[in-house]
Amino acid sequence: MMLNAEIISVGTEIILGNIVNTHARFLSQELAVLGINVYYHISVGDNNKRLIEVVNQAMSRSNLIVFTGGLGPTADDMTRQTLYQALGICSQELGDAASDAQGVQLLQNDYGTAPGYLLQRDQITFVLLPGPPRELEPMFLQYVKPYLQARTKQTICSKIVHVVGIGEPELENKLGDMLETDNPTAALYVKTGEIQIRVTAKASDASKAERLIDQKVSQIAACLGDEIYGIDAVSLPHTLVQKLTEQAKKIAVAESCTGGLLAARITSVAGASNVFDMGLVTYSNEVKHKLLDVQQQTLEQFGAVSEQVAVQMAKGLAKQSGADYNIAVTGIAGPGGGTAYKPVGTVYIALEHDGKVWCEKYTLARRQKEREYIRELAALYAMNMVRLALAGQPKYADKFVL
Amino acid sequence: MMLNAEIISVGTEIILGNIVNTHARFLSQELAVLGINVYYHISVGDNNKRLIEVVNQAMSRSNLIVFTGGLGPTADDMTRQTLYQALGICSQELGDAASDAQGVQLLQNDYGTAPGYLLQRDQITFVLLPGPPRELEPMFLQYVKPYLQARTKQTICSKIVHVVGIGEPELENKLGDMLETDNPTAALYVKTGEIQIRVTAKASDASKAERLIDQKVSQIAACLGDEIYGIDAVSLPHTLVQKLTEQAKKIAVAESCTGGLLAARITSVAGASNVFDMGLVTYSNEVKHKLLDVQQQTLEQFGAVSEQVAVQMAKGLAKQSGADYNIAVTGIAGPGGGTAYKPVGTVYIALEHDGKVWCEKYTLARRQKEREYIRELAALYAMNMVRLALAGQPKYADKFVL
Repeated sequence: MMLNAEIISVGTEIILGNIVNTHARFLSQELAVLGINVYYHISVGDNNKRLIEVVNQAMSRSNLIVFTGGLGPTADDMTRQTLYQALGICSQELGDAASDAQGVQLLQNDYGTAPGYLLQRDQITFVLLPGPPRELEPMFLQYVKPYLQARTKQTICSKIVHVVGIGEPELENKLGDMLETDNPTAALYVKTGEIQIRVTAKASDASKAERLIDQKVSQIAACLGDEIYGIDAVSLPHTLVQKLTEQAKKIAVAESCTGGLLAARITSVAGASNVFDMGLVTYSNEVKHKLLDVQQQTLEQFGAVSEQVAVQMAKGLAKQSGADYNIAVTGIAGPGGGTAYKPVGTVYIALEHDGKVWCEKYTLARRQKEREYIRELAALYAMNMVRLALAGQPKYADKFVL
Repeated sequence: MMLNAEIISVGTEIILGNIVNTHARFLSQELAVLGINVYYHISVGDNNKRLIEVVNQAMSRSNLIVFTGGLGPTADDMTRQTLYQALGICSQELGDAASDAQGVQLLQNDYGTAPGYLLQRDQITFVLLPGPPRELEPMFLQYVKPYLQARTKQTICSKIVHVVGIGEPELENKLGDMLETDNPTAALYVKTGEIQIRVTAKASDASKAERLIDQKVSQIAACLGDEIYGIDAVSLPHTLVQKLTEQAKKIAVAESCTGGLLAARITSVAGASNVFDMGLVTYSNEVKHKLLDVQQQTLEQFGAVSEQVAVQMAKGLAKQSGADYNIAVTGIAGPGGGTAYKPVGTVYIALEHDGKVWCEKYTLARRQKEREYIRELAALYAMNMVRLALAGQPKYADKFVL
């Protein structure tokens, strides 16, 4: 059955702008997966007259109406009462005890007190969900999604291919026609430092959809190779910690411009303590010399942001640490400190392994050269170099020449 | 004049759930500041029929209709054409050159190509803004807000009081009646590790509103004292770097459970290089001993998460660094590693200054003990201890006893 859906978010806090309506997004994504068209998102305050008007209109054009919010015990919470009023249902008729008999299904709230409701009237399905995301999301996934799936008899599945170290135009160019197919589709989503390719397929059941997806993913993988760091991955730090753990290798970091962010990203992964040896934040030249034995002369001659200093940092770190991979980052995060020759966003990353260093220069900038953007990207690219080195392919092994 | 507003967001990407509709929130907040009631948020796809229906309905109930999105040059972008269709305006009649003559004001786009539009028809004001937030927000603030302000002749101003180190119930209790007044109002917003008190006043002009706000802020400040780290502050790291800079003091950090996050937060502030001496991420016992001279016996006897180890870390750091304030963090960020005696969320923070150490134990946990939450809070509380020590009051000076 074809379902045309409308999402009605009830809450004065939304139309006052106190909170962002993230539910509508969550529900839209979930409904899309079920092949349900969502045509309208409506937000309205806790006001009986306006809510009734919105409900009546929704009933004139949609056959699946999902409400969020307004289910609590206070006088402000009026979604259920107002819907019953619009449907001409006497409230007592639908007391909680008699719910099943009246065709109203109570949805258990595993993370809060107010239950949800599911009912069918005049060919229209009404779903009432609580406002807080941590109550709404599990309730939808556990109780509402299976119900709707049985109705639509269609499944849409997705997998996400995570790509790092390549820009959007170049990626579009490489993938070419692969981005133009109808089922499965492949769409690009640009994130900070990575691009996600979402491959989505429709089929009558999940295993058929997954077969379609897997074919497409293989095709993309054959085209991109190492630029893919994972399929349905959690994050690049997570992949890195996993690979280090698998190979029983340790990592140490020395950071100038990233100022601890690289260490923080790696140690954000539970279990990082097995692979993280040490981190040194060496902001000033003095500390670079003291902790990493970077030579004063090198600092003076080439500047702190230079290949030479990055390499000395990595080698100095290797002497201090007991790690297999020693990575050093030095760069200009801005907003100050840039020059015509070394603009804000210039970053050198040096990776020491077995006594040899692989050093790369990056120029990380966009229209507004935000400090945090540059730092995040530098940390990601540093992790990516270690990931590639861990892949053990000759083309990366050959890069350790300094 | 009383304005009742409705926000219509146009874009298939919103109803598909590809993006969150953050505009509606931004605009609601901004319109509230002008004393304009927002009663509805509507999101609709790039579809002429449904958009016309939505426009007609909005015209029947609102006298300020703000559109976002759908102003670009492609066929998908149909907001302007559809509105003209609904208003019965011939599109040529409103060619860009003739705009002023026809009562349509073009709004310059300082951050993109598609201009915005402002027009008045049948007692209704229509505002058309581009979709991307970085184009929409400056356009609204610079060109639309002054226009609406002249219409409503009312100003609402706010100031935010930033509070750290105190929980919501305790804060409500301390502030009592101060949270109950009508003009100005004071409302609490709980953020990670801090609470913001937003004080808002309405008046016929900004200076009157600000006088009302300042009285209230003084009253709150008298009640809370040092728990306030700033008024309309950027962030706690920003305040800390500012205070260190003013007093020409340097800071060094040694991190176990925060794993670089404390250093990353401090160095996220532009200009931190003037006050940040060094950062050491000492995850393992071995590295705590090697870099900070923490004694093996202390580690064995009391465990890595203990007051004794935190104090030795801070003292060891002080020996390494040239900093005035040396701060060490050790704790259990989880998800593993907790015990009944030292549960996940147990954190010791030790601050060395002038050879003496102030050490605090924190138990940071909420229902779900998220690793990143505990790490963020530990980093914030560490920065807060330095902030308090810098205040130079005897009550904090007296805490340096170890």
